Amino acid sequence: MKMLINSPQTVVADALRGLAAAHPELDVDAETRVVVRRDARQGGRVGLVSGGGSGHEPLHAGFVGYGMLSAACPGEVFTSPVPDQMVRAAKAVDSGQGVLFVVKNYTGDVLNFDMAAELAEEDGIRVERVLVDDDVAVTDSLYTAGRRGTGATLFVEKIAGAAAEEGAPLERVAAVARRVNEASRSFGVALSACTTPAKGSPTFDLPDGELELGIGIHGEPGRERRPMMPAGEIAEVAVGTVLDDMANAAPVDGPVLVLVNGMGATPLLELYGFHAEVARVLAARSVAVARTLVGNYVTSLDMAGCSVTLCRADEEMLRLWDAPVQTAALRWGR
Amino acid sequence: MKMLINSPQTVVADALRGLAAAHPELDVDAETRVVVRRDARQGGRVGLVSGGGSGHEPLHAGFVGYGMLSAACPGEVFTSPVPDQMVRAAKAVDSGQGVLFVVKNYTGDVLNFDMAAELAEEDGIRVERVLVDDDVAVTDSLYTAGRRGTGATLFVEKIAGAAAEEGAPLERVAAVARRVNEASRSFGVALSACTTPAKGSPTFDLPDGELELGIGIHGEPGRERRPMMPAGEIAEVAVGTVLDDMANAAPVDGPVLVLVNGMGATPLLELYGFHAEVARVLAARSVAVARTLVGNYVTSLDMAGCSVTLCRADEEMLRLWDAPVQTAALRWGR
Repeated sequence: MKMLINSPQTVVADALRGLAAAHPELDVDAETRVVVRRDARQGGRVGLVSGGGSGHEPLHAGFVGYGMLSAACPGEVFTSPVPDQMVRAAKAVDSGQGVLFVVKNYTGDVLNFDMAAELAEEDGIRVERVLVDDDVAVTDSLYTAGRRGTGATLFVEKIAGAAAEEGAPLERVAAVARRVNEASRSFGVALSACTTPAKGSPTFDLPDGELELGIGIHGEPGRERRPMMPAGEIAEVAVGTVLDDMANAAPVDGPVLVLVNGMGATPLLELYGFHAEVARVLAARSVAVARTLVGNYVTSLDMAGCSVTLCRADEEMLRLWDAPVQTAALRWGR
Repeated sequence: MKMLINSPQTVVADALRGLAAAHPELDVDAETRVVVRRDARQGGRVGLVSGGGSGHEPLHAGFVGYGMLSAACPGEVFTSPVPDQMVRAAKAVDSGQGVLFVVKNYTGDVLNFDMAAELAEEDGIRVERVLVDDDVAVTDSLYTAGRRGTGATLFVEKIAGAAAEEGAPLERVAAVARRVNEASRSFGVALSACTTPAKGSPTFDLPDGELELGIGIHGEPGRERRPMMPAGEIAEVAVGTVLDDMANAAPVDGPVLVLVNGMGATPLLELYGFHAEVARVLAARSVAVARTLVGNYVTSLDMAGCSVTLCRADEEMLRLWDAPVQTAALRWGR
């Protein structure tokens, strides 16, 4: 498998050097692997820190900036960052208002962020944590107890980031972050496996003519393998599964935020065509759409495929979604 | 080859339906295949119209909006749109100030835009044309007489779009567009071929362990095939070739705009790592960098690889680059 890299060992460090070169507005410490917005401590805001294994770009470093994350800690590819990174990030962004850790529900991330929270609190930093677990495909997987955290991470980081930007206190930023996660559900589909630089070959074997339903973002197995389906049928399975799961939960009113997310190697031409089918299924089920985002945001290296995330948004969530954001990967309204 | 599509015949129409569903601020006519910003005729601005074969998304429809294109005409995959689309687009955006056609230098596009310009002028619309031909890899290719138009299209559309947005007359918008093209050079590299929906198999055969230097954006052959190289060496070839070609032209002073562009299937993690090497080579050759953009902007379906575009920017070009833009794929400052 060919890759545009220097060596498998330097992939993350090289990407951080490139991020630093391209984004002077970010303070990128390629040594300790912490990415901080330069003005993180100005304005006395709550700090928002996230992180996780690399390979999901632009998540999380691409979401550091005005109105979203204060800092991100990238781990090795598909490997949790270590507590030391998270503590450094918390210290770099805390202005006395406390820090919210946004943690995707994978065993390693949860353990390490918990340890980091303890260490940061020993240093006098107030820490709250929100766990993102939106993937309805599987409960318990190779990397997770409970549901996996996937596309909803973008919704949580954007909306909680906007709350922090406008000066909400830690408890309220944490509360809206949890509400967004509870209101969000995702389902993903793979047309190909991904290849990690270290392994150099696909993480699973997906024959020609088959697709994997319910995949995660680490090349872990999905829920079911089926003969290849047209985009319209894939949209029916993905959106249907998400909506059915939502209906089982406490009813949440309001229109939905839609994220049609590419896993990394699916052309935007296909993603927009797929979104036409997602919109059709939503309309057929009388679900009103408030906002839509189509693109590669929570990826899995070079995997072909996509995921759909829906979030039943209340008025506050919508207002915070629309608020200005200025990061490497998500920008509007400012 | 698996694709997230309904059928090869409906790929472009489906994508336009999805674009319409996701972007209510665009007037998408999926029938006649014209994408227009809804406020195109407000403000009495010069209209900016581009288009070309589909498969290069977000180019061009993703660049329609405030501060960039007024309209885009997508053709079939890798196939020029027809003059009727371009004339419709010109009529939809002309407010009496005239229209600039931004044309990538491919035989079909050039012929069709020329014919459209004649037809539009017969209808009383003033039309100017700028030809984009920035690719230094080959002169004359499968699809082109002269150099191909690739990554510089983004620079031309952004900068000319900003000039039109601030009310510059047609001659000045056309002049700055031509200056940007003349100041820009690109070089691309493929790690894999791409697969068109109609063909269903890769457009050329690129063995494991080899890469193709100097590729275009249609899966056409490149300049040279070599054993796979590390990212740093690829950056040296790409940036070196571009800079050497620039030095042969009339000297243009000023720092460069840098576009490190993914061809569609290369993870952002790799693109940022590659950009670190591009930045290193530029620094070693004492070239000052003014602005940098890293991402998938001028793609070739599911091709793995990247291109580097440099533009020697003068002060006006820099100011127009920084001006606010609000499109599906490029947004800042507003």
